[in-house]
Amino acid sequence: MRDKLSVVKIGGNVIEDEKALDVFLTTFSKLEGLKILVHGGGKLATQLATKLGIESKLIDGRRITDKDTVDIITMVYGGLANKKIVAQLQSKNINAIGLSGADGNSIHAHKRPVKDIDYGFVGDIESIDSDLLTNLLSINLTPIFCAISHDGNGQLLNTNADTIAAEIAIGMASIYETTLYYCFEKKGVLLDITDDDSVVKHINTPKYNELLADGIIADGMIPKLHNCFYALQNNVEKVCLGDVSMLNENAELFTTLKL
Amino acid sequence: MRDKLSVVKIGGNVIEDEKALDVFLTTFSKLEGLKILVHGGGKLATQLATKLGIESKLIDGRRITDKDTVDIITMVYGGLANKKIVAQLQSKNINAIGLSGADGNSIHAHKRPVKDIDYGFVGDIESIDSDLLTNLLSINLTPIFCAISHDGNGQLLNTNADTIAAEIAIGMASIYETTLYYCFEKKGVLLDITDDDSVVKHINTPKYNELLADGIIADGMIPKLHNCFYALQNNVEKVCLGDVSMLNENAELFTTLKL
Repeated sequence: MRDKLSVVKIGGNVIEDEKALDVFLTTFSKLEGLKILVHGGGKLATQLATKLGIESKLIDGRRITDKDTVDIITMVYGGLANKKIVAQLQSKNINAIGLSGADGNSIHAHKRPVKDIDYGFVGDIESIDSDLLTNLLSINLTPIFCAISHDGNGQLLNTNADTIAAEIAIGMASIYETTLYYCFEKKGVLLDITDDDSVVKHINTPKYNELLADGIIADGMIPKLHNCFYALQNNVEKVCLGDVSMLNENAELFTTLKL
Repeated sequence: MRDKLSVVKIGGNVIEDEKALDVFLTTFSKLEGLKILVHGGGKLATQLATKLGIESKLIDGRRITDKDTVDIITMVYGGLANKKIVAQLQSKNINAIGLSGADGNSIHAHKRPVKDIDYGFVGDIESIDSDLLTNLLSINLTPIFCAISHDGNGQLLNTNADTIAAEIAIGMASIYETTLYYCFEKKGVLLDITDDDSVVKHINTPKYNELLADGIIADGMIPKLHNCFYALQNNVEKVCLGDVSMLNENAELFTTLKL
């Protein structure tokens, strides 16, 4: 039987709030078995950019990562957020090690090709070094990833944290029985967006298509669910969507996705 | 015979200058054998603090690391400087991995006790995890340390990069035949401070005492040489002091210190 691995992604809203972060890290530290954390950085980067008078450039509502912005992201996600999480996990007896995709060449990517829009220094992932991660896990380390990859030519690249989590889970799925957890502000996929408890507890492929057709999965949930099924189609055992409480041993109210 | 290990410390003046950093990293990448890099952050942190309107607090000319300052240092040393160095070394075929002392619990420290002055969040090192570093080196990783340690209770601590380099060299000296390199702006210990080529090539303990008595070792060189001999007295094989060129295979003009 293969060892179990949990890949957990937390969103920026948890990172921004010291108390929420502490609750999350305590819960994460108690999660049994091998584990990897992937974190976004939330509004901290925008806040720092504003303080430094660096304008956020948006085209069609999408952020452009110019040279100054990739520096800001490296400071905030790779530095402040990542090292604070690592130090706090150490205090909770988890031997955390913070990584960007450049560290140990763990996430190799290329700059997104320019079609209509040049998104700047944004990375599309090519490969995860699952041997490295297996080695780190085998010496009792818990990798903590910020949402940064690199191109192998010296350039750091801003990379979507949901995608990093999915690619890591996929990369590890041939070695471990891997569960991917997406923690966000809701308790799961909601049947009724105005009712926080209307969680759809189980979603398989037919149910997924039904929810898409009915418009229950809409807006920001479309790419999130797409990531989930992409992971499932690539050997990830199951994907769970919910708030932090889903990591508790006896949690019930969250969404589990299987093919 | 034990494997050889080089522990190299570079100063802030190299980090601040893109071209100088590239020259250094190319030289470092060609250095044979196992190696570990320790870097300071130089004036980048002060520059960011100034831009953010955070005052640098000095007491008797010594910097006080308050809460805001430790955040700045974590962003600049642990984020920007460390990840840029790692990404650039990856492009030079070195499988670098960036670490603060919190990562893998690699450098455990305590906040400097308050006597006359409270230096704030400044770390005095208690221990280096040489097993972790040996494990990382054994899977072909090159650890790149920023000058940050942690106290095990969730607090990151600003820590002198020269001291980190010495403590790492000492921690590894029981396992490897360890050489400690301090790269700085001079070619070594100078007999005549106005003559850059007046390098004292070899210093042993009697010579050290002589140079101290004669005032040749003065000012900022006193703590630097103290660190060197402290390392030598704790099983480090030799210590070399000079500019970046001393890492070249055929380098001649630098200072070598032995007991």
